Amino acid sequence: MSAVFTQVEKFKTHIKNFVPLTDTLSSYNKSLFKGDLNAGVTVGIMLIPQGMAYAILAGLPPVYGLYASIIPLILYALFGTSKQLAVGPVAMVSLLVVAGVGEFAEVGSARFIQLAILTALGVGLVQFLMGVFRMGFLVNFLSHPVLSGFTSAAALIIGASQIKNLTGLDLPRTNQVQEIVIETFRRFTEIEPITAAIGIGSIAAIILIRKWKRTFPSALVVVAVGTAITALFGLNQHGVAIVGEIPTGLPAFSLEFLNLSDARILIPTVLIISLVSYMESIAVAKAIANKHGYKVDANKELVALGAANIGGAFFQAFPTTGGFSRTAVNDQSGANSTIASIISAAIIALTVLFLTPLFYYLPSAVLAAIIMVAVAGLFDAAEMKHLWKTDRRDLAMLLVTFVATLALGIEEGIAIGVLLSLILVIYSSTKPHSAELGRLGETRNYRNIDRYIEANTDDEILIYRYDSSLYFANVEHFQETLFTKIEQRGKKLELVILDASAIHTIDSTGIHTLNEIIKDLKQREITFFIAGAIGPVRDKLKTCGIQESMGQENFFFDVSDAVACYKETPERIRKTFSPIQTNVKL
Amino acid sequence: MSAVFTQVEKFKTHIKNFVPLTDTLSSYNKSLFKGDLNAGVTVGIMLIPQGMAYAILAGLPPVYGLYASIIPLILYALFGTSKQLAVGPVAMVSLLVVAGVGEFAEVGSARFIQLAILTALGVGLVQFLMGVFRMGFLVNFLSHPVLSGFTSAAALIIGASQIKNLTGLDLPRTNQVQEIVIETFRRFTEIEPITAAIGIGSIAAIILIRKWKRTFPSALVVVAVGTAITALFGLNQHGVAIVGEIPTGLPAFSLEFLNLSDARILIPTVLIISLVSYMESIAVAKAIANKHGYKVDANKELVALGAANIGGAFFQAFPTTGGFSRTAVNDQSGANSTIASIISAAIIALTVLFLTPLFYYLPSAVLAAIIMVAVAGLFDAAEMKHLWKTDRRDLAMLLVTFVATLALGIEEGIAIGVLLSLILVIYSSTKPHSAELGRLGETRNYRNIDRYIEANTDDEILIYRYDSSLYFANVEHFQETLFTKIEQRGKKLELVILDASAIHTIDSTGIHTLNEIIKDLKQREITFFIAGAIGPVRDKLKTCGIQESMGQENFFFDVSDAVACYKETPERIRKTFSPIQTNVKL
Repeated sequence: MSAVFTQVEKFKTHIKNFVPLTDTLSSYNKSLFKGDLNAGVTVGIMLIPQGMAYAILAGLPPVYGLYASIIPLILYALFGTSKQLAVGPVAMVSLLVVAGVGEFAEVGSARFIQLAILTALGVGLVQFLMGVFRMGFLVNFLSHPVLSGFTSAAALIIGASQIKNLTGLDLPRTNQVQEIVIETFRRFTEIEPITAAIGIGSIAAIILIRKWKRTFPSALVVVAVGTAITALFGLNQHGVAIVGEIPTGLPAFSLEFLNLSDARILIPTVLIISLVSYMESIAVAKAIANKHGYKVDANKELVALGAANIGGAFFQAFPTTGGFSRTAVNDQSGANSTIASIISAAIIALTVLFLTPLFYYLPSAVLAAIIMVAVAGLFDAAEMKHLWKTDRRDLAMLLVTFVATLALGIEEGIAIGVLLSLILVIYSSTKPHSAELGRLGETRNYRNIDRYIEANTDDEILIYRYDSSLYFANVEHFQETLFTKIEQRGKKLELVILDASAIHTIDSTGIHTLNEIIKDLKQREITFFIAGAIGPVRDKLKTCGIQESMGQENFFFDVSDAVACYKETPERIRKTFSPIQTNVKL
Repeated sequence: MSAVFTQVEKFKTHIKNFVPLTDTLSSYNKSLFKGDLNAGVTVGIMLIPQGMAYAILAGLPPVYGLYASIIPLILYALFGTSKQLAVGPVAMVSLLVVAGVGEFAEVGSARFIQLAILTALGVGLVQFLMGVFRMGFLVNFLSHPVLSGFTSAAALIIGASQIKNLTGLDLPRTNQVQEIVIETFRRFTEIEPITAAIGIGSIAAIILIRKWKRTFPSALVVVAVGTAITALFGLNQHGVAIVGEIPTGLPAFSLEFLNLSDARILIPTVLIISLVSYMESIAVAKAIANKHGYKVDANKELVALGAANIGGAFFQAFPTTGGFSRTAVNDQSGANSTIASIISAAIIALTVLFLTPLFYYLPSAVLAAIIMVAVAGLFDAAEMKHLWKTDRRDLAMLLVTFVATLALGIEEGIAIGVLLSLILVIYSSTKPHSAELGRLGETRNYRNIDRYIEANTDDEILIYRYDSSLYFANVEHFQETLFTKIEQRGKKLELVILDASAIHTIDSTGIHTLNEIIKDLKQREITFFIAGAIGPVRDKLKTCGIQESMGQENFFFDVSDAVACYKETPERIRKTFSPIQTNVKL
């Protein structure tokens, strides 16, 4: 009986670990539910227009935005470790879908829809596997400047893509922002006045409502007002494009999209969406978790987002992730657990079941306005200003990614940004900082003599610190800078101390070079000490026999010890007078 | 008058700097010339058969090996900074030529020859420009294990490619070593007995002569004997393949090979040959220069090799570089300057002018034997053994490159090796070593408590050292490892000291994270000190306002100072008893 009990307990722990929601429920109460209900309803109402808008942005009929707001939300609620994260369609991912899938199918066509859903399955699988194999760290390769440059460019591209719907102009579908802007000005007179009035009016209304109260469903207000006006005055007869008929009913389970040969062509798109969407989600999840003093688990988050996308795909959802703005609203409206997401999903489900006919007269310009306001906040001029003051190299990276995204394309831009930042990391480690050290007064501190010009040096001792791991890409530089300093000192030099405290790894090429240096210094009759080498480096020096060939007595905890030892050991002071000198050579 | 004189002097210095040979000649004398003459003749005689052999290996008629041994040698002699380097055709580069150019033209065809010469021009331009723009450091990206794995695989591929000529078997031209070996065994009975006897006999003879005296022209001996026997007994009538007619006369100036559209397809081949050939050359040039106590200039070497290839291409030479074996012989035979190379070139010029008819009966098997002996030394089993003992990760890199080169191809192998080693560098910096430090007895030394288990720690102080630069790829890891340690300590913790001595750079993402940590620690009422930050990091912390927000007084030279300051400052000892405490909250 007790054995069975233990087994049951074990199983329970296992379930709690795997499905965090069960853990939440075990201590759930009325007051928590009140918060969740309020937040769930608020976000659900916000999601109706946003979901449709982002579906249009992704090149899909509006109803797919609602489909993507049901199953993924429920699955995330089961597996997610963030209590406030609001999952669903987001602008950035929608843009990536239209850019990636648009290469292989006509935007809005049946094949396009199938490929978008297949992309969701791919993204889900990649994220799920990344989580299972604990590869969440991969996202670290997207540096902040690269992501910021990419996001700002994406904001411009998304904004430009909506000018068409906002103004009623028949603009070409292109990612070249300048083309759209030029074309807009060229055809300025062709703008549909009523459409533009609705669009620009909606933007103004959203901004004003937001200023008044952030959690108020501003988007739904403009949707309601816009739809009502259009229906009342029959504006669709006067050139205002409307959403039209939206099918009623829950998304059906379907495997129609499954196709291995299509899967292959989507691989680059899938990989980029997997990383970018996870990145957006984990960033906002962590920020909110920090605020509330709990932790999100990066790998479990990957599993949860993966499950949301996989499950969603089988019910006609395109790729989803945790978004910035809805998560903020969810939190501000009092969400205490992922129950709030389930409530939001229920609201969307009710909408597709009963309310879609209400959106027949919804003008496309209103949805365009919603998208434009949403992405305006993504253009991050503040970060550019900040980097201009603090880190020009990172600013350059941001701008290269920004320009590459605008000029070459969405996926190319982010790929170039990542590659460039990795190359720069390598490049800067080929020519690292290094310094000659001197003693600060009578202290034990030895510091860069170019910074502390009052630091004291001895003519016969060269103390050299190399600020990088020693590996194949910089051994040349190490050897050259060291020997330049040695040769500057000339004949008086008796001792070289390598301050190895900043050398955190050493590879076989580094060992090879160190051996050459030791041999060379021996020939020049210069003593060689190593000070401050850290554990992993000492291990390597031992394995490779350098500790033995140099002699244990030539290793020191720090530079100060090394200098003291050299000065206090009489036979070392003048090596020309050796106690074991003989005249055999003569 | 004096102004003109100064101008002339300046011009002279300029010339000396640009054409090192003029500098050599200014102090040249008879005894130096004696050494150069001996070395030049020895290497020249060695070059005759080697040049023809490597031309065949490269898929070209033998005479092109002689063409490649005239102009490039003279140009290197003018611009090179190595006094002993012997430039000319080498096995590795020939292999790269046949692998790269062979994709676009039938081996040995007229178009193949034009493309091989065009490759030489491309290699020359790339090397020349790399030298002018001081990009010699790029070669550092080829790590020792990658180069060793690649070279060993190339040795096998080259060796296998010569079995055909060595045995008279009609084997397929492929880079798949196993196919050649299997085919050889399968058709064992079809081996031409006389051809095989000449081939294997030549190998044995070369090895024996080398053992006796390394500088003796062993290759020329087997060429002479092999040719004489074949001619005497008319062995070419009995199935022995011979070189046949070799055109007489110096290589003519020709621009026939110039073709922009061809140039484009050759780009990958050109880039790889440029790097690999420079790498081989600079390695041997440096080794010899070290031995003689002078320096070679990496960027000038690139310019010199570039000039040799560019000039060579206009006189029908395929890509050349400085080779291991001939350079060693050149040095051992007494070469004192690049005059030796000019003498070698003269010998080859005399050969193509007058002696080519002598090689009519030269059996291909003899040339195959020369190649096989040359490349046998390139298979580096010793390095594999050494890495097995000292660095398994580098061994893995070597083996991956080795296998990739054998299985996927010459260029793919080296590309995979380089990419893999760069990825590993990045990867290992995403999860660097870090340590919690404790005090060693009463000393000022603070060390990893996992290594020095006797090190003392205080319950209220956490000292943490992070052994890497802090940048976008590892900020996550930094934050997580630090806070894991902080949470392990619990409520007693009052002070966190970050030993930043091994953090040699910090980027904007790192700064962002550091700010978060500072904010978080403030909330937990934990004091935060930074100890031992190096100059470039301090600069960054200042620019980004961290020095200001943390307070100047929280920065220390080393951990010992930081701990002492904390313990000696009374108001810090118990922060719960503040001298300015009030009861306002109650």
